[in-house]
Amino acid sequence: MRKEAIHHRSTDHFAYAYDSETLHLRLQTKKNDVDHVELLFGDPYEWHDGAWQFQTMPMRKTGSDGLFDYWLAEVKPPYRRLRYGFVLRAGGEKLVYTEKGFYHEAPSDDTAYYFCFPFLHRVDLFQAPDWVKDTVWYQIFPERFANGNPAISPKGARPWGSEDPTPTSFFGGDLQGIIDHLDYLADLGITGIYLTPIFRAPSNHKYDTADYFEIDPHFGDKETLKTLVKRCHEKGIRVMLDAVFNHCGYEFGPFQDVLKNGAASRYKDWFHIREFPLQTEPRPNYDTFAFVPQMPKLNTAHPEVKRYLLDVATYWIREFDIDGWRLDVANEIDHQFWREFRQAVKALKPDVYILGEIWHDAMPWLRGDQFDAVMNYQLADAALRFFAKEDMSASEFADRLMHVLHSYPKQVNEAAFNLLGSHDTPRLLTVCGGDVRKVKLLFLFQLTFTGSPCIYYGDEIGMTGGNDPECRKCMVWDPEKQNKELYEHVKQLIALRKQYRALRRGDVAFLAADDEVNHLVYAKTDGNETVMIIINRSNEAAEIPMPIDARGKWLVNLLTG
Amino acid sequence: MRKEAIHHRSTDHFAYAYDSETLHLRLQTKKNDVDHVELLFGDPYEWHDGAWQFQTMPMRKTGSDGLFDYWLAEVKPPYRRLRYGFVLRAGGEKLVYTEKGFYHEAPSDDTAYYFCFPFLHRVDLFQAPDWVKDTVWYQIFPERFANGNPAISPKGARPWGSEDPTPTSFFGGDLQGIIDHLDYLADLGITGIYLTPIFRAPSNHKYDTADYFEIDPHFGDKETLKTLVKRCHEKGIRVMLDAVFNHCGYEFGPFQDVLKNGAASRYKDWFHIREFPLQTEPRPNYDTFAFVPQMPKLNTAHPEVKRYLLDVATYWIREFDIDGWRLDVANEIDHQFWREFRQAVKALKPDVYILGEIWHDAMPWLRGDQFDAVMNYQLADAALRFFAKEDMSASEFADRLMHVLHSYPKQVNEAAFNLLGSHDTPRLLTVCGGDVRKVKLLFLFQLTFTGSPCIYYGDEIGMTGGNDPECRKCMVWDPEKQNKELYEHVKQLIALRKQYRALRRGDVAFLAADDEVNHLVYAKTDGNETVMIIINRSNEAAEIPMPIDARGKWLVNLLTG
Repeated sequence: MRKEAIHHRSTDHFAYAYDSETLHLRLQTKKNDVDHVELLFGDPYEWHDGAWQFQTMPMRKTGSDGLFDYWLAEVKPPYRRLRYGFVLRAGGEKLVYTEKGFYHEAPSDDTAYYFCFPFLHRVDLFQAPDWVKDTVWYQIFPERFANGNPAISPKGARPWGSEDPTPTSFFGGDLQGIIDHLDYLADLGITGIYLTPIFRAPSNHKYDTADYFEIDPHFGDKETLKTLVKRCHEKGIRVMLDAVFNHCGYEFGPFQDVLKNGAASRYKDWFHIREFPLQTEPRPNYDTFAFVPQMPKLNTAHPEVKRYLLDVATYWIREFDIDGWRLDVANEIDHQFWREFRQAVKALKPDVYILGEIWHDAMPWLRGDQFDAVMNYQLADAALRFFAKEDMSASEFADRLMHVLHSYPKQVNEAAFNLLGSHDTPRLLTVCGGDVRKVKLLFLFQLTFTGSPCIYYGDEIGMTGGNDPECRKCMVWDPEKQNKELYEHVKQLIALRKQYRALRRGDVAFLAADDEVNHLVYAKTDGNETVMIIINRSNEAAEIPMPIDARGKWLVNLLTG
Repeated sequence: MRKEAIHHRSTDHFAYAYDSETLHLRLQTKKNDVDHVELLFGDPYEWHDGAWQFQTMPMRKTGSDGLFDYWLAEVKPPYRRLRYGFVLRAGGEKLVYTEKGFYHEAPSDDTAYYFCFPFLHRVDLFQAPDWVKDTVWYQIFPERFANGNPAISPKGARPWGSEDPTPTSFFGGDLQGIIDHLDYLADLGITGIYLTPIFRAPSNHKYDTADYFEIDPHFGDKETLKTLVKRCHEKGIRVMLDAVFNHCGYEFGPFQDVLKNGAASRYKDWFHIREFPLQTEPRPNYDTFAFVPQMPKLNTAHPEVKRYLLDVATYWIREFDIDGWRLDVANEIDHQFWREFRQAVKALKPDVYILGEIWHDAMPWLRGDQFDAVMNYQLADAALRFFAKEDMSASEFADRLMHVLHSYPKQVNEAAFNLLGSHDTPRLLTVCGGDVRKVKLLFLFQLTFTGSPCIYYGDEIGMTGGNDPECRKCMVWDPEKQNKELYEHVKQLIALRKQYRALRRGDVAFLAADDEVNHLVYAKTDGNETVMIIINRSNEAAEIPMPIDARGKWLVNLLTG
């Protein structure tokens, strides 16, 4: 057996509490290198005649990627404590893998050899809100979704949809516009909306907050937001807002004070200022988001800033009953801040959803003390490469997904925010080169996979556009210009997801990934219900064998009935 | 190159801030498989003509174990943000390793391929107190160190050293006894003492606390402790106490209240009780330490318990100015408790040392938000196997140490609490089968290695004893019965450690590990000063080549002058 591929560490995706009774222990081995793995385990304090008392159970292979097989054991230790190791077999060979290395036989004179899960504490559990597993999200860029109240539109706002947006143009979209179209969302099957920022800010995207305690007057007022949340809740739709805490806007009061008073400002330590006086050229001499002078980075370790932002976070929950916070540029803010953020918002509303914008591997934020989920751009990237750009084969796609899934605890995957595109990426149909069939496959994949899927406004009716600002066009409300067939496809998939628990909450397994025919088969299983997803990505009809023994099983084609 | 051995993840020992300016990035590759590794890195927001701007720097091999080579790069990113990958070369082969897998050439059209260290925040730094790197600790089991005040000895206490201890016997050791022998410790060179518990408790070891706010009356009173700390500080000796927060003793007031009032007790949720009435046989029906009914486990997630224990933790710092807390059974308490513990004690005394008792891999507690160090039993285990039990070869020993060192961030190793034995393990001389030469080598290793070394009382004079209670004999004060030669050896090593910064703070490198001759050579380097440690573990004199080019260098034999 290839020892350098065998890996486990008693933390993160390898060893975690899945719920308040169950531990998950995972092992990685070289792909196709090991025949059989057992978990060897016991309570550390169970001894008899000078020998530690352990038992064994077989581990189950939950998937593979290009390099590795992954094995899982689920244990409910009666005293919530565990010491454990792994017994690996290949051919006639046997290895016992422990924290202290490899042995031929399992030592029992000491538990110190073994891996340790010291105690299962409920308070340390990673627990995302249960409802997100059943939610289908819809992301709205409010300035471009619908203009419900032209009286508050910005001066010079263009007529709705009259032209393509520029980085600075306005079209008058607002909160009333969203309220007016909730029936549309309900018809599609949406159960959660995520709004990009709505607080007072000069730009059209509002990621440059001027006042965290005010609704942007071009979007409405606090009463409008209250109405929006109330109407949504009546329809079973949850509401998530966007918290831009990494940086503020140039117009934010405390930053203006520093601009005016320099080193004498009482707010000077609210920011990361390298020298006075402040200057913006050639590069700002204060930390910013990227190198954007209009977005000064906040010093989130400063007690006053922390207090201020936590007040913001709790205010909109307490007063407006919102259900989630999406956290902009979340990974550039300190972990300590996010720990206090979680404590503050969960104390107020235990099932609020905390979603971080992180494009990369996000393990350090998903250990139970910070976020419930991150925006799953890793999944989006792979899906777009396989379905849209076709620069990834079926087997590479399956490998990549298995790699990502096995790099997190299972319950992290179950709450992941599975988007395919956003206000920061080109539109699906555009990435697909205009091929609606590919868009349909993307939605099929997204809406049958593990996680909490999110549709970017307009993708369901075939809107187009490249990178920002093109992906932020006005929502098309003229039925003639909407792709109704695509809409009905998405609506059907959402309905199936609601109907079949296996689609929402089942375990996923890849059954076939064929690079010749160009097809992919995976299954979602919940109890004795299995939904098979069979995807033909080629341009031709294909006979795809069902990689299961169907004898004695009741088979239904869910798409055709 | 063996891809399944190449590993990096942007967290823990692989990617961390070493100080407020410097990031450490580490890579693991199969041993002797890769010739050359470069870090490819840049600020994520530096773009030119549509291409991400990156640079490269060579990585340095910092060590190897039985399976892997480990590579390190140190970077000071000007804007504290980093995206990075690795360029590996072997023979004519080249691989670029990124978060998304392997490439032949480094992609520059997107930073999303790369690993991400989003932002270096000082508040998230793992920062142990600087002084521990210069400290030589001495662990005292107060009941057995010295009887300074016979008037307060327990009734029936045996005359000092008159017999071997039993699990329940008393000999009258107390705090005054420690005060009386501070000159002894100062002569040896000790700069920190760690006392096992001193709070009121019925047992001789006092791990069954009855009152966390009182000194055990057989040990002294609060005035005695104040005097002890004051005298220690005058001599440059720091004082660490033992916090037993995982469980209390049977006599602890709140537990007595539950015993008395059952489910009606206002303290019933302070514990983990499975059913009422409480019973202790055949096993307690409440959670305990191990299965010991006298040690009921505390519910450290309960707000009142948390408040109570944090009050204890701060009380002894605030009122008595202690310098550290050693945390008993630390890994069986929830992480959330320890995060709040750190906040509370560091707010009061920023350079207090937080030391957890963890015998296993302890990464989850050493991420900057919980402990400064753990008791390094992993190092002790390897050292005893190589030097004492001789069931580990020189190369296995070097491999094992390199494995442990490379499983933690560098600054974690620098603050590790390097013990060789304690009140929970057999005495060094006993493990060495009575061979004082081996004990000398163990001390040589311990006092020249990276970390904060700790001597268990009496080991420096050759005391003997197997497992508890034998390892808790009365300290031998009769000079005739002390091994003075061993004492002088330890004293000389401590003096050398103080004299040479390289010994305290230098980087460690293994230069030779010879299983034939049975010798080991390692070096500690600080700037242009290097101390070579050359160890012959065989029973015969040996010629050991110095594995360096000594030309033009000034060489001194530190042991002989």
